[in-house]
Amino acid sequence: MILAKVIGTVWATKKDEKLTGMKLQIVRPVELDYAEKEGFFVAVDVVGAGVGEIVLVCQGSSARQTEPTENRAVDATIMAIVDKLDVVE
Amino acid sequence: MILAKVIGTVWATKKDEKLTGMKLQIVRPVELDYAEKEGFFVAVDVVGAGVGEIVLVCQGSSARQTEPTENRAVDATIMAIVDKLDVVE
Amino acid sequence: MILAKVIGTVWATKKDEKLTGMKLQIVRPVELDYAEKEGFFVAVDVVGAGVGEIVLVCQGSSARQTEPTENRAVDATIMAIVDKLDVVE
Amino acid sequence: MILAKVIGTVWATKKDEKLTGMKLQIVRPVELDYAEKEGFFVAVDVVGAGVGEIVLVCQGSSARQTEPTENRAVDATIMAIVDKLDVVE
Amino acid sequence: MILAKVIGTVWATKKDEKLTGMKLQIVRPVELDYAEKEGFFVAVDVVGAGVGEIVLVCQGSSARQTEPTENRAVDATIMAIVDKLDVVE
Repeated sequence: MILAKVIGTVWATKKDEKLTGMKLQIVRPVELDYAEKEGFFVAVDVVGAGVGEIVLVCQGSSARQTEPTENRAVDATIMAIVDKLDVVE
Repeated sequence: MILAKVIGTVWATKKDEKLTGMKLQIVRPVELDYAEKEGFFVAVDVVGAGVGEIVLVCQGSSARQTEPTENRAVDATIMAIVDKLDVVE
Repeated sequence: MILAKVIGTVWATKKDEKLTGMKLQIVRPVELDYAEKEGFFVAVDVVGAGVGEIVLVCQGSSARQTEPTENRAVDATIMAIVDKLDVVE
Repeated sequence: MILAKVIGTVWATKKDEKLTGMKLQIVRPVELDYAEKEGFFVAVDVVGAGVGEIVLVCQGSSARQTEPTENRAVDATIMAIVDKLDVVE
Repeated sequence: MILAKVIGTVWATKKDEKLTGMKLQIVRPVELDYAEKEGFFVAVDVVGAGVGEIVLVCQGSSARQTEPTENRAVDATIMAIVDKLDVVE
């Protein structure tokens, strides 16, 4: 899973019918200190993550292993909101 | 999912039989301000996206989770046309 | 899918038994003007593409969604021969 | 699979319900001499790997092929603790 | 599939139970002239490839499409030993 920050939302009226009601959030990968990295992608949110929150994003076929995303054209899902990290470096 | 712009079309007469009728669009990833990034790839369009439109592309096995692409040799599908982005940076 | 050029063939006598008879072609990604990019990988050909031809390659689990590659250890399949591209840039 | 070092733990109270009880470890890819590379990601641990240990991480749909991770939104799993490497270079 | 050279072996006593007996080989991607590239990863060998041999490695879910790796936490499998390449450049 990737550590990321929710930085926005995608609005799309015309989409595959099975995506109706899915919340499409824009996420940007972050470092261990939550500093933003380059790049972004779009993930479906299944845990109610708001803009600015640090989350875990699951990618690939595993992104469909939540009840809301099952059998849908979703390749990235926000499946956890991060409370904190314990890092030993 | 990846934010991209449709920049063209691939014509291919000789292809796996299950791909007959699939629209093969060339997409180029874009930034949050829709500026084009480097690179491109080919995705099947299932939402009627035209050249120049900003779309979401789903990749991997999830690209087969739409009715037209099911069980087909398709690893990228345009599954939404983007209306707008709300981004907080 | 990736736009690529067939640049050669792999010969491998000793291989997983389900791969018997599969044609293993070496492909190199190309630009929109068919200029060769860096790198290469190996894909199974299911459309009779010859060396020098421009093709589409499907990767991941979708590479197994053709009759010849079904249930086989194949992660890249040439599933179309490109006639031409229409690109608006 | 990727050779990596466990460098920390993610705490996440709010997560997809099927992830309850999963141990979310932060892993950093390492070289053959165990020197840390750049970057990190999060993997579910199914072998009891502690912080500082060198492990193998399996990614993608294969990350769900262990009893604890089956059918869960997990795209990376620590599935082995490395004793040693024999490398001929 | 990726062209690679077997450069070593991973020893791991503590691993997911379904991996018992799997041979975990370290592979390094190579160029068309078999010159070693940067990087390495770990793949399960199902064709008896020895250290120093040039092989094909299949990745992702397709890595589980051999009898020994089926339903196992394996994301890369050595599924062919390369005899030779015919390359036209």
